[in-house]
Amino acid sequence: MTQAKRTLIRGGRIVTAVDDYHGDILIEGERIVCIGARLEAGPDTRVIDATGRLVLPGGVDAHTHMENTFGPSVTCDTFDTGTRSAAFGGTTTIIDFALQETGTSPLDAIARAQAKAGSVSHIDYGFHVIVTQVDESVLGDMRYAIRHEGVSSFKMFMAYPGTVMSDDAAIFRAMRMVGQHGGMIALHAENGTVIDLLIREALEQGHTSPRYHALTRPALMEGEATHRGIKLAELAEAPVYFVHLSAKEALKHVIEARDLGIPVFAETCPHYLFFDDSAYADDSFDVARYVMSPPLRSMESQNALWTALKTDDLQLISTDHCPYCLKEGHLGRVNQKPLGENDFSRIPNGVPGVETRMTVVYDGGVGTGRISLNRFVELTSTAPAKLFGLFPRKGTIAVGSDADIVLFDPDATQTISAETQHGACDFTLFEGRNVTGQVKTVLLRGECLIEDGEWVGPSGQGQFVARGELGVHW
Amino acid sequence: MTQAKRTLIRGGRIVTAVDDYHGDILIEGERIVCIGARLEAGPDTRVIDATGRLVLPGGVDAHTHMENTFGPSVTCDTFDTGTRSAAFGGTTTIIDFALQETGTSPLDAIARAQAKAGSVSHIDYGFHVIVTQVDESVLGDMRYAIRHEGVSSFKMFMAYPGTVMSDDAAIFRAMRMVGQHGGMIALHAENGTVIDLLIREALEQGHTSPRYHALTRPALMEGEATHRGIKLAELAEAPVYFVHLSAKEALKHVIEARDLGIPVFAETCPHYLFFDDSAYADDSFDVARYVMSPPLRSMESQNALWTALKTDDLQLISTDHCPYCLKEGHLGRVNQKPLGENDFSRIPNGVPGVETRMTVVYDGGVGTGRISLNRFVELTSTAPAKLFGLFPRKGTIAVGSDADIVLFDPDATQTISAETQHGACDFTLFEGRNVTGQVKTVLLRGECLIEDGEWVGPSGQGQFVARGELGVHW
Amino acid sequence: MTQAKRTLIRGGRIVTAVDDYHGDILIEGERIVCIGARLEAGPDTRVIDATGRLVLPGGVDAHTHMENTFGPSVTCDTFDTGTRSAAFGGTTTIIDFALQETGTSPLDAIARAQAKAGSVSHIDYGFHVIVTQVDESVLGDMRYAIRHEGVSSFKMFMAYPGTVMSDDAAIFRAMRMVGQHGGMIALHAENGTVIDLLIREALEQGHTSPRYHALTRPALMEGEATHRGIKLAELAEAPVYFVHLSAKEALKHVIEARDLGIPVFAETCPHYLFFDDSAYADDSFDVARYVMSPPLRSMESQNALWTALKTDDLQLISTDHCPYCLKEGHLGRVNQKPLGENDFSRIPNGVPGVETRMTVVYDGGVGTGRISLNRFVELTSTAPAKLFGLFPRKGTIAVGSDADIVLFDPDATQTISAETQHGACDFTLFEGRNVTGQVKTVLLRGECLIEDGEWVGPSGQGQFVARGELGVHW
Amino acid sequence: MTQAKRTLIRGGRIVTAVDDYHGDILIEGERIVCIGARLEAGPDTRVIDATGRLVLPGGVDAHTHMENTFGPSVTCDTFDTGTRSAAFGGTTTIIDFALQETGTSPLDAIARAQAKAGSVSHIDYGFHVIVTQVDESVLGDMRYAIRHEGVSSFKMFMAYPGTVMSDDAAIFRAMRMVGQHGGMIALHAENGTVIDLLIREALEQGHTSPRYHALTRPALMEGEATHRGIKLAELAEAPVYFVHLSAKEALKHVIEARDLGIPVFAETCPHYLFFDDSAYADDSFDVARYVMSPPLRSMESQNALWTALKTDDLQLISTDHCPYCLKEGHLGRVNQKPLGENDFSRIPNGVPGVETRMTVVYDGGVGTGRISLNRFVELTSTAPAKLFGLFPRKGTIAVGSDADIVLFDPDATQTISAETQHGACDFTLFEGRNVTGQVKTVLLRGECLIEDGEWVGPSGQGQFVARGELGVHW
Repeated sequence: MTQAKRTLIRGGRIVTAVDDYHGDILIEGERIVCIGARLEAGPDTRVIDATGRLVLPGGVDAHTHMENTFGPSVTCDTFDTGTRSAAFGGTTTIIDFALQETGTSPLDAIARAQAKAGSVSHIDYGFHVIVTQVDESVLGDMRYAIRHEGVSSFKMFMAYPGTVMSDDAAIFRAMRMVGQHGGMIALHAENGTVIDLLIREALEQGHTSPRYHALTRPALMEGEATHRGIKLAELAEAPVYFVHLSAKEALKHVIEARDLGIPVFAETCPHYLFFDDSAYADDSFDVARYVMSPPLRSMESQNALWTALKTDDLQLISTDHCPYCLKEGHLGRVNQKPLGENDFSRIPNGVPGVETRMTVVYDGGVGTGRISLNRFVELTSTAPAKLFGLFPRKGTIAVGSDADIVLFDPDATQTISAETQHGACDFTLFEGRNVTGQVKTVLLRGECLIEDGEWVGPSGQGQFVARGELGVHW
Repeated sequence: MTQAKRTLIRGGRIVTAVDDYHGDILIEGERIVCIGARLEAGPDTRVIDATGRLVLPGGVDAHTHMENTFGPSVTCDTFDTGTRSAAFGGTTTIIDFALQETGTSPLDAIARAQAKAGSVSHIDYGFHVIVTQVDESVLGDMRYAIRHEGVSSFKMFMAYPGTVMSDDAAIFRAMRMVGQHGGMIALHAENGTVIDLLIREALEQGHTSPRYHALTRPALMEGEATHRGIKLAELAEAPVYFVHLSAKEALKHVIEARDLGIPVFAETCPHYLFFDDSAYADDSFDVARYVMSPPLRSMESQNALWTALKTDDLQLISTDHCPYCLKEGHLGRVNQKPLGENDFSRIPNGVPGVETRMTVVYDGGVGTGRISLNRFVELTSTAPAKLFGLFPRKGTIAVGSDADIVLFDPDATQTISAETQHGACDFTLFEGRNVTGQVKTVLLRGECLIEDGEWVGPSGQGQFVARGELGVHW
Repeated sequence: MTQAKRTLIRGGRIVTAVDDYHGDILIEGERIVCIGARLEAGPDTRVIDATGRLVLPGGVDAHTHMENTFGPSVTCDTFDTGTRSAAFGGTTTIIDFALQETGTSPLDAIARAQAKAGSVSHIDYGFHVIVTQVDESVLGDMRYAIRHEGVSSFKMFMAYPGTVMSDDAAIFRAMRMVGQHGGMIALHAENGTVIDLLIREALEQGHTSPRYHALTRPALMEGEATHRGIKLAELAEAPVYFVHLSAKEALKHVIEARDLGIPVFAETCPHYLFFDDSAYADDSFDVARYVMSPPLRSMESQNALWTALKTDDLQLISTDHCPYCLKEGHLGRVNQKPLGENDFSRIPNGVPGVETRMTVVYDGGVGTGRISLNRFVELTSTAPAKLFGLFPRKGTIAVGSDADIVLFDPDATQTISAETQHGACDFTLFEGRNVTGQVKTVLLRGECLIEDGEWVGPSGQGQFVARGELGVHW
Repeated sequence: MTQAKRTLIRGGRIVTAVDDYHGDILIEGERIVCIGARLEAGPDTRVIDATGRLVLPGGVDAHTHMENTFGPSVTCDTFDTGTRSAAFGGTTTIIDFALQETGTSPLDAIARAQAKAGSVSHIDYGFHVIVTQVDESVLGDMRYAIRHEGVSSFKMFMAYPGTVMSDDAAIFRAMRMVGQHGGMIALHAENGTVIDLLIREALEQGHTSPRYHALTRPALMEGEATHRGIKLAELAEAPVYFVHLSAKEALKHVIEARDLGIPVFAETCPHYLFFDDSAYADDSFDVARYVMSPPLRSMESQNALWTALKTDDLQLISTDHCPYCLKEGHLGRVNQKPLGENDFSRIPNGVPGVETRMTVVYDGGVGTGRISLNRFVELTSTAPAKLFGLFPRKGTIAVGSDADIVLFDPDATQTISAETQHGACDFTLFEGRNVTGQVKTVLLRGECLIEDGEWVGPSGQGQFVARGELGVHW
């Protein structure tokens, strides 16, 4: 039996969700085997100098859409380009989506997703299944997925009637089942019926420009759906998770529920933390870059989100990475944002984010004192790992955990640009932003993928991470 | 230079506020130097077998009263008996109190407290200064204490007019100063003026039995004072900490403030988590054992406290260990609970708790599923250490931290009794309670104080732990 | 031209929503023409002695179902029996319902309802149209109804999918239109989709007894729908009215909205004020008498409703008079409660109440001190008249108002029984209840219908009362 | 026996807190004896033509300070000038204050106040006693005042330590006593201890200009004291009334309490409804005109107050008329606002308001649609009369009530100016404001004081109005 490969990360400042100390980390094979004050490197041990670096657990992004087919367009990142981009951003695990297509089983969806990501992904991954139809058979397959397929979270839509929207009874049934079997329902919470009406009316009135995307998705309707989702979960005695929470009108209900100890969880996304609805001021088509769902909200909402990140009323920051190119034909993928040039409702919804998440949150959160360094780690790695059943393999730096490690230079400055990023998308909302803090080196299960900003690792070594019963608690 | 003493704790399940894994801990001198999957013991290394044990950071109790002189009585535990008892309970650091006496400086108070605890304490300790008078000179001395004396927290009383009560302006001034200099005010929040009136009226009406202690300290008046303390802190732009929060009427205001991101913190105590005001049902003097301030509250309050421990609206569990014997003359200390035989207002307020804290919270909290194991560690060790400036020396198991470690048997059962405890008090509220979980072995800075339930260590090795600016955040 | 008929009500204690004084009331024709300290009766003036009586404006009941066809059954009261019963209960105006049948116009519904009530009703009446389908044409007809038909309120259902339920977009559209044109939407707020699932599941599990009616309509789902309705109204910038609010879970949202000055209104019904869910304790079919929607709620809810009546968070008390006989074949109407003997979901939902409303609210509200006498008048007469556009014709005793007047003996005692009531229903929930206070004499537009408890007036003189734009404010 | 004087007010639009109709009012002696559709004037009846006029109950102002001695200055209005001014403003009853001086009884205070107002006041009046010391004897005298002196409300101060401030125990004792005997405590709610510190510190720092009056009385400290007052009242099981509520931070607590049905009441004043803290922008002494306590607040607070007037969370609008001249020596009264030229803390606190109240609230409230016409009457007349035991003599237009009647021209426009007012003060905050609506004619107990804007009545006919137990409810 051959000796497992050994790596020693020396001299860094190790930061977890709770700890913050200097130490060396010894990796054997894929796992951390020892953390010490001054460890000796054996003869076959590769040494990485982490002096002056923060040594962080690899980022976990609980919400990405690689090669996502939804409507007429496909997101421009494949699992290849997208996970490479994520790695450069300091993220070593993503949870992407597997879509239950009409008349098929959630298990089929998982199989299809596995096939897409399989030998291509450069970082580890799991899936939430998007459930679009619920009956006894589907519920049975969901239960099977939790127990045997390592998929214990399911997303349902309260928006998009006629395509993926589920009615309240379906959501309630699914919640009740997963609540009994250690899974969790994630909700896209917007009142789809009303929003569809508003969209139809706007178009009828000739309002076709991208800003009407925002005007037809009012914050009140996110708030309404969020409240409804919470009440369905309470009735089902199940936990519930809200994806991409953006509005204070929605946050209010999450706070109220959590104050009572009800198991309600929510993520927000970097775009809601750094941009606001002033982006929708004019009728130009360039506004299409800000078309995501929910849309950007008021500054009051933005401030409320930051407070909630501090108070743990929001528990994680995910990207909702859902990239569509601004220019026609970019990278050979046609039919992206320009699809909606004459009809905002046909603009694919989504923005890239997987490469910028850790950096902009560090810069804009830790750098400004809005959140602590420990909290930064918790929001971007530990909490998503714990909530979605990846912990302690992912989400921490501890003996026995996967050696998914990021060396982060807290003092380096950089200017963000789509040009220098590694995904397929031709824009980033953060274009031109100067930030302090930079991902330098990234290890995935002991393997060095990136070193000093250069890809040095093997490709396609990402693995599916099976998750079991979530055992969701606080 | 001699080799530092080495100890290896082998095979345990290490639990911190965030992590939970199996590993070995190597201690050199007073500190943890290495944590590994399977560490080799060197020739001079003492090995402690932790198989089947939880390996926890030593408990930190932020609220004790050893040798406390307040009114006509002195608490029955000295720093000798009290800290021995604490150690047996799995607590390796306490923060006790230094009382500013009339006309003297807080610095004198610290000096006196140091003299009392100095060569006697068996575990590490710090002090909060009880500030009873505020003027420019006192404020200057408080600032000096933060910067140069390692004392950065100060307690003030909204109760007990005529003795230790401060008025709102004094509290506000002190808050504002410490808010600017990295300290924190801890408040005993009860409306003293009204309570004193109720006490006088009760006595005038011949209501002298101990239950009137509770009836004259209504929850509404804790709620009022808590709100007032928060508003004073908001105006002072300073953090505030509430000791022994007991009533949902008070908790409500803490929750509201925290929802808004205002730096408000609070502890509760085990007696509020396991007992309620049904204890005050009759007029017998035996009720004197339940005389502490605030008194026990309703079951609704008790349930609310448990929820708040989960939701982080309460951040720590301290004991308010303030033991007075039930029987006259116990241990040579006269004048304890029986002082108030004919006048409840003369019963010394307080109960013991330092030896039972970890065990009853483990049993009643983790054992019942009300809180997680990580949260248990956070509430009893990490959070008090972080909030009061002891972290990362105290409050975690990490490389570089003090080797204050508890080996806890999660399966052992025991029956709690004052008989088998190690403090000076002749009763415990938990008498006869069967609990699962037991402190087995306790290390203080690498030194084994207790092994398998027997005192094996040196005595009086506790040290004062200087704390600096708290840098209080979330 | 003949002299109008004159009546003088002498010596009573006149009580309105704000006033309370002794005085005489002179009626000429249908209207009050003078109120004075001591008025002389002219030669042709009928004098009614009101000494010792409260002189109240006739009750206005904003929620009744006479001859209501909904599902397989028809309510047992016609406009003949039902309005006679109402008059005996001190109510001189009702607002009943006109159901928009599939594919027809709201205007057709009004015409059908007019035909039913036309020459039969003994008291004045108006209609809310139940809107079940919304399109441009229907919206136009609703606008027409407001402007030209005297019907300015419309009821929509969030429950009963497949029959009368509207989706959120339809409700929103209707709200927006009426908000712009002086009308108001009344909502039946229960989450129909989830409730239907619960009903189907209960039946599948063999739970067929009446108590499952309550168990499948959880208070949480009334709360959810109420919140949703409020948010739809906010978005539509329209007022909203909730019928038969029963649960504190729903009331909470009404309170929150009203605190912000949002125009949200709600009624509750006497059965929710005097009964609670302990009625559903056993599996007997007799429980069918308590089958109404929403079902009876917890005592906490009942108490919260009473508080809200005092604080004006609930503004009116209506009956939801919807009587179905308990016994087969009663009065020649078959197919009432017994329809659901083997399937609770087939029990017609509803109870009688129109004859008991004023008396039980007086006895249980004013008599116990829970509400004031002025507030009693406001809740049962003035507020419904104001809110639904009947004021000042109805709802007060003032010069120029319709002489709809009740002489109420505040000291008389009676025992309520279906036997002695005047409606068609064979039971009342208040059977056997002893109450203080009794309707003695009732005038409708100057005509004495009932005198000292005997019908003395003409029959079928009730008129349709056209209402215009509501101009809803506070 | 001579025939009582008769007056007929003909053709007006009579508006009460609930009604709104056209009718004639017949007055005999001091009371309204008949209201009719078209009344005949007898031979000796004076007829007042009210065509085109609103006929309103005379205003009741529950908070005035005539000839008020507080500190070094006396308000510039006597009961002569002040009540004449009030009458011109449409107010026919005031409740002024009687100050308990150190070591004297509340009964002495009432006697002194009666002597001052006695033969001088032009309108009716009552008194609140300002209680500054509480002991058994004082409590006994307060009880006597309620029962035998017609004084059932008492004001206590949470501000101004060292002069009139009471501590919490004193307030609680007084509340408890009046709660049992049908009285009510009115509170000036600001945290005096903290405010005094802030004032001393500001002066020490050389901040002497009037704007520091506002900066040293933060809204948070009004909020704090308001909460404290509510909790004391809850404990005392007594109603409580807050004078001059100005800040949303205080209003929040009133709303919360009222939502729970707790008997908490509050007034605001016109200056808080029309001005805001932008008045304190500069250091000029002219800012002294805006020196009142509490000071003007933020626009957010102003908006919140208007909402609360609509929702009944604020129940009345009083003036806190407390006029001090801006110029030295005005009207022979020296020592007014200029007293504080070099020290803001010596500026007498207060502004005039008694002549402008009805007009500015009509114009800015009814005219803008923020409140209804009925609500206007309720806020300015009916509610103060009901709350303070003057109803039904005052506060309504009904048979048997005092004929205190205002004829108000809703269409007349005027420009407000101190020049054209009738009080002694040399300024008004509303100087130059154009308003629609004007008091034309004012009757006090049947006597015409003012006709078409000219004083036509006798002088000094105001009477003390004895009030009994308040029977405070909703």
